[in-house]
Amino acid sequence: MTTEWKTVRLFVVPSVIYLVHNNVQFATLTYVDPSTYQIMGNLKIVTTAILFRLFLKRKLSILQWLAIILLAVGTTTSQVKGCGELSCDSLFSAPIQGYILGVLSACLSALAGVYTEYLMKKNNDSLYWQNVQLYTFGALFNMARLICNDFRGEFEKGPWWQRLLNGYTFTTWIVVLNLGSTGLLVSWLMKFADNIVKVYSTSMAMLLTMILSAYFFNFRPTVQLFLGIIICIISLHMYFVPVHLLVDSPARSKAASSILKEVTVENQG
Amino acid sequence: MTTEWKTVRLFVVPSVIYLVHNNVQFATLTYVDPSTYQIMGNLKIVTTAILFRLFLKRKLSILQWLAIILLAVGTTTSQVKGCGELSCDSLFSAPIQGYILGVLSACLSALAGVYTEYLMKKNNDSLYWQNVQLYTFGALFNMARLICNDFRGEFEKGPWWQRLLNGYTFTTWIVVLNLGSTGLLVSWLMKFADNIVKVYSTSMAMLLTMILSAYFFNFRPTVQLFLGIIICIISLHMYFVPVHLLVDSPARSKAASSILKEVTVENQG
Repeated sequence: MTTEWKTVRLFVVPSVIYLVHNNVQFATLTYVDPSTYQIMGNLKIVTTAILFRLFLKRKLSILQWLAIILLAVGTTTSQVKGCGELSCDSLFSAPIQGYILGVLSACLSALAGVYTEYLMKKNNDSLYWQNVQLYTFGALFNMARLICNDFRGEFEKGPWWQRLLNGYTFTTWIVVLNLGSTGLLVSWLMKFADNIVKVYSTSMAMLLTMILSAYFFNFRPTVQLFLGIIICIISLHMYFVPVHLLVDSPARSKAASSILKEVTVENQG
Repeated sequence: MTTEWKTVRLFVVPSVIYLVHNNVQFATLTYVDPSTYQIMGNLKIVTTAILFRLFLKRKLSILQWLAIILLAVGTTTSQVKGCGELSCDSLFSAPIQGYILGVLSACLSALAGVYTEYLMKKNNDSLYWQNVQLYTFGALFNMARLICNDFRGEFEKGPWWQRLLNGYTFTTWIVVLNLGSTGLLVSWLMKFADNIVKVYSTSMAMLLTMILSAYFFNFRPTVQLFLGIIICIISLHMYFVPVHLLVDSPARSKAASSILKEVTVENQG
């Protein structure tokens, strides 16, 4: 448990990034329509990999880069509007500012993820202590905003803490519990796995949600959802399966063993 | 130049397969709508790879199998009808016979391709002599059909050779020239490359045609065309780029060299 301010203050950064990111997201939505916004969201898969490489200095093979592009393409494919749906004249017809903000948003999201991974892996502090620091600053930032609102509204409705739990139903509590657990799981993922694993799990969760929606709410699953799932599964294999299992065809392993034999002969000679 | 009947008669087989295939195609179209038919056509990429493995005994690595599935998915993605287009209630709503015939059609198409490759590579005969045999039987089969039609129509319109070139315009001749050249190029491809190369070139040609149509006929290119192109390009890299170039990240080559070092040490010990 490191309690020096020098270390603790680093946990302010993710909160600041998320603060900026949330505002950029709303700004983006004033320019682009929801479909374009959803499709642009997949860009953060690629920006995460880029920042993962640049800031965390984690090397990826070309095959893994191809897998990451493929994952972004796969999730996008599953989101393409099908035939018979409303006209898509609005798709990709936003002013250039919309796209710039979309790219900025993808970069900020990736930056927050990569920075959190850096923080979590920086030292061997307990995950719980790291979470306490991370979420305390997040809570402080949100509290600041609420107080700011109160001052703007001149305390007409009373201080924010009196209204904090207004309108909370059972469902609301379930959602809060769900979001809280997700947060803890993501911290765990960042400490013991990495951002790329998170990107894959988020994408797979999205596809699973689409399948379950089709099943429970009687949506007809589209061809593009089916294609997107195949693409993402192939991408998963390309990224995580050790390469010698992917190319261990008899012809190639024969070639490999003959190289080894040459090496052996050279060493004996 | 092998002229023995034992060898020449093998060239009858592709003509018979194409004859059956053409009829199956028409039967399929009586059951399924054109969009479903087009999408099912991509199945022949996968059936070609399967027969390529089974009949020509060519080993493919898992990465190459993934690449082939990805190519089929990529071409399908580019063909998915976009939003704003007509309703697609008809898509994949055909009776089961339609799908069985579609699969049969994909298998026959693959069989014809794989068999032609087998014929072309069987011996070192000149490509021109092989083509002569291949197309002579094709021409004979077509002629048989024309004569058959004449007998059915009781020669009311005269024999077929008097009507063979009726209605040929300049454009018709260009199309004939184009199809003829394609046929010769495919033979060349089958002798000196293989069926998988053909499958990739056909798919890339299809995507190029879609891009050119968008450019020349002012079609608005769809998001799914763009996604399909990325998918197919990634598939192309996975299949053809030597695997050591795909995974030659410093970390992995370091691991590889440490394995080599171990081998060396063992040999010296």
